[in-house]
Amino acid sequence: MNLNQALSALNELEATLRAYQHALGCLNYDGETVAPRNSAPARGETMGFLSGIIHEKVTAPETGEMLDTLLANKESLSLKDRRRAEVLKEERDDLTLVPADEYMAYQQLMAESMQVWHDAKLASDYPAFAPYLEKIVAYNRRFAERKNAARPAYDVLLDGYEKGLSHETLDPFFDLLRRELAPVILEVAKRPRPDTAFLDQAYPIHLQRQFTDRVMQIMGISRDDCAVGETEHPFTEGFNKHDVRITTHYHEDSVLSSLYSVVHEGGHALYELGVADELQGTVLAGGSCMSLHESQSRFYENLIGRSRPFCEVLLPELKALFPSQMAGVDAEMLYRAANLSMPSLIRTEADELTYSIHVMIRYELEKAMIEGGLNTADIPGEWNRMYKEYLGVDVPDDRRGCLQDSHWSFGAIGYFPSYALGSAYGVQMLKNMEKDVDVWGAVRAGDLKPVTEWLGEKIHRHGQLLTPAQLVESGCGGPFDPNCYVRYLKEKYGELYRL
Amino acid sequence: MNLNQALSALNELEATLRAYQHALGCLNYDGETVAPRNSAPARGETMGFLSGIIHEKVTAPETGEMLDTLLANKESLSLKDRRRAEVLKEERDDLTLVPADEYMAYQQLMAESMQVWHDAKLASDYPAFAPYLEKIVAYNRRFAERKNAARPAYDVLLDGYEKGLSHETLDPFFDLLRRELAPVILEVAKRPRPDTAFLDQAYPIHLQRQFTDRVMQIMGISRDDCAVGETEHPFTEGFNKHDVRITTHYHEDSVLSSLYSVVHEGGHALYELGVADELQGTVLAGGSCMSLHESQSRFYENLIGRSRPFCEVLLPELKALFPSQMAGVDAEMLYRAANLSMPSLIRTEADELTYSIHVMIRYELEKAMIEGGLNTADIPGEWNRMYKEYLGVDVPDDRRGCLQDSHWSFGAIGYFPSYALGSAYGVQMLKNMEKDVDVWGAVRAGDLKPVTEWLGEKIHRHGQLLTPAQLVESGCGGPFDPNCYVRYLKEKYGELYRL
Repeated sequence: MNLNQALSALNELEATLRAYQHALGCLNYDGETVAPRNSAPARGETMGFLSGIIHEKVTAPETGEMLDTLLANKESLSLKDRRRAEVLKEERDDLTLVPADEYMAYQQLMAESMQVWHDAKLASDYPAFAPYLEKIVAYNRRFAERKNAARPAYDVLLDGYEKGLSHETLDPFFDLLRRELAPVILEVAKRPRPDTAFLDQAYPIHLQRQFTDRVMQIMGISRDDCAVGETEHPFTEGFNKHDVRITTHYHEDSVLSSLYSVVHEGGHALYELGVADELQGTVLAGGSCMSLHESQSRFYENLIGRSRPFCEVLLPELKALFPSQMAGVDAEMLYRAANLSMPSLIRTEADELTYSIHVMIRYELEKAMIEGGLNTADIPGEWNRMYKEYLGVDVPDDRRGCLQDSHWSFGAIGYFPSYALGSAYGVQMLKNMEKDVDVWGAVRAGDLKPVTEWLGEKIHRHGQLLTPAQLVESGCGGPFDPNCYVRYLKEKYGELYRL
Repeated sequence: MNLNQALSALNELEATLRAYQHALGCLNYDGETVAPRNSAPARGETMGFLSGIIHEKVTAPETGEMLDTLLANKESLSLKDRRRAEVLKEERDDLTLVPADEYMAYQQLMAESMQVWHDAKLASDYPAFAPYLEKIVAYNRRFAERKNAARPAYDVLLDGYEKGLSHETLDPFFDLLRRELAPVILEVAKRPRPDTAFLDQAYPIHLQRQFTDRVMQIMGISRDDCAVGETEHPFTEGFNKHDVRITTHYHEDSVLSSLYSVVHEGGHALYELGVADELQGTVLAGGSCMSLHESQSRFYENLIGRSRPFCEVLLPELKALFPSQMAGVDAEMLYRAANLSMPSLIRTEADELTYSIHVMIRYELEKAMIEGGLNTADIPGEWNRMYKEYLGVDVPDDRRGCLQDSHWSFGAIGYFPSYALGSAYGVQMLKNMEKDVDVWGAVRAGDLKPVTEWLGEKIHRHGQLLTPAQLVESGCGGPFDPNCYVRYLKEKYGELYRL
């Protein structure tokens, strides 16, 4: 196979993967948003079938030959073509580590496991889920060993979510958060709680839907390229830069829940929408690793969305749609309600200050499970002990404890740190952005375009053309510095709670 | 290949087709309901890719060998296995008539043509669409000739929508409708118009959505197996008996429009939901031909949905949701409003009496186009002339004339007659059903289960296990008799308008 043949084989493989991944993404989005409940088994079968074909195409010997040819000629390739080959090679290497029958069996295990987790969570029945978690941990440990037996298994898994990430970055990061934030959290918990009574009213869902439209407009998200669905656990799915889907959930008694889901998922969407045209259709289209994706979503959600200027912009919108509920509320009250900090049980509902502690606890547990020091049977006890130690809360049941998140049930071990890391990246990006852009002027004007353009230039447009490390450097304007995140949180909550 | 090998090859092919068709159906449904506007090109590409694979699998020589083996051993096959082979053979024969490159080019033409039609309709610009229609007609004529040069081309096309259908059935059918109904229509037009002022108010869409929930409940449609989407031109998509999707559209100023869309599409859904378990996953799952599908949708929409007893059931539901709009309205007023008859321009909004005349006009035009007597350039003139002659209306522009329907733009020529034929089948089925079931007692009780169970037994459960002719006979309890339809319409409208 010569270089030209290899390049056209690459084009062809990308076209194939694009079609199958588009179909899979659509089936998944549909399944999570509008599909009727009993549709799951047939959808699982179809998705298994299509995933099997992706596995077959990526692991095919011809694909190996094509990638070898390309990577043996790295120097004569454009950056784009080189990265296309590298990114596919990584994917292929992961898939070829696992024999096809073992891969299919694991897919089947995960499908069952997600269902079991779902029911176990409802029933707060950890023992029902534990045997599945046991198998999933064993699979991940085996996978990590096959991939690189020389490194700690958990590091190998972390690297799968962000190339280059290991305990060497994360141990000191989470140590710092524990050391610096835990005392602040306990101090804040003693202060008077802001007045949030205006939130404890009915906000009709059909009006919340209109509010979503306005929020997306303020964020500058084109509805011709991005739709909004409704689901239980909000997520974003991006097929290409002209077809991104965010999701939210509406609770009549919790107007801020949908608002911040929309702003968070909107951040993911802006990333996908901002990838350069010339990367579309290739494996480089779409956002980079999970932590970078979370850096964008949590940037919009917290740094912008929970800022005073943004609350000032939202206030008249809320008053127009909910005049009686919002009577007597001013921007400062909204700001304080949106930033209510309180040690709590549920990660996805946690405020900015306590959020990373939830993640830290999962990090410690995952590391211990994979490195072999912790049995799955001991997870609930350890979970509850750490929640008490770091957040001062008693976990009443596993539903609100170690069964709350779905990640482990679909095999995602090593994923959680992305949330905290992304939050920290985002703060450093903001500080860097403030040197170039009048961020708060833009927010006050209700037009986030200058903010998004800056992120587009530094992060979004590059897709996977740059490595995660290069993108972090590009956004942060220097090496990652977790102190920046800690300083930001201490300042923000110090002012809010007069510490 | 021996018989056992052929049977397992059949199972495998069905599993493959099921996965691709599920993915295609999902992409289509998503595209028509929730996808953002700019998603169309990439979706078209993905759907083209997946359709190409279906074409490849069905036309593969191994598939031919498998089907030949099965059909050579018809006598030793179960009815189910024989029909699986026969139905696939028909599909394969159609696909193998067209070389792969011509097939792909035609798919491309249709994708463009649908877009052009859409824009041409908006602009009422028939000349923009005419060249596409010209090519589509030529393709269909060529296809029909290849398939069976000995028969009139239009008959070959009709046969593709309902096996066995030809002008020999349709000519006398439409003659009868013209002769018997045209005078009634003109007579009705002279009578006083019922009072429909209560409809000319705003019916908020979020309340109409709740009304849909109630209507589906009355119809006995399980929401765990059937979801409702929103779209411009309502349709139904069925993936399997546990995953059916109906769609509707909401207009604040037209509450009956969504109501009857839901009841119509709900009829399609009940058909798909009622197919026997043992046919699931095979090519026999899902409803039979288009006319049988329309017999079910129009049965529920008109025969049940526009009956006095059903209006009596709906009235309190409407009053509960729309108390001010429905103040002073009684069941008889609702019944008369739901059955307002008036010669009009738009097929999909036509009442029961005039509906089949709209279809008859399309039948005559299609036949003349395909048989070569009518140039596409002359369509608007002929269309307008016939609307004047049979319905007494002047067509003001092509948007409300020959560009109103999408069917020709996606190559469906020979499809329209199904609507009228299905309507007529439905009436005969009702008369047959009344012998076994207390239809109106069930409707009055707000529980359509006895009605649906009867149809399930006679039609739904058989999927494609029986031929269309066998199913018509099963439902109608004898040979098709178009007089039954005419009598029904004359009686209903005679009473309504005191003719």
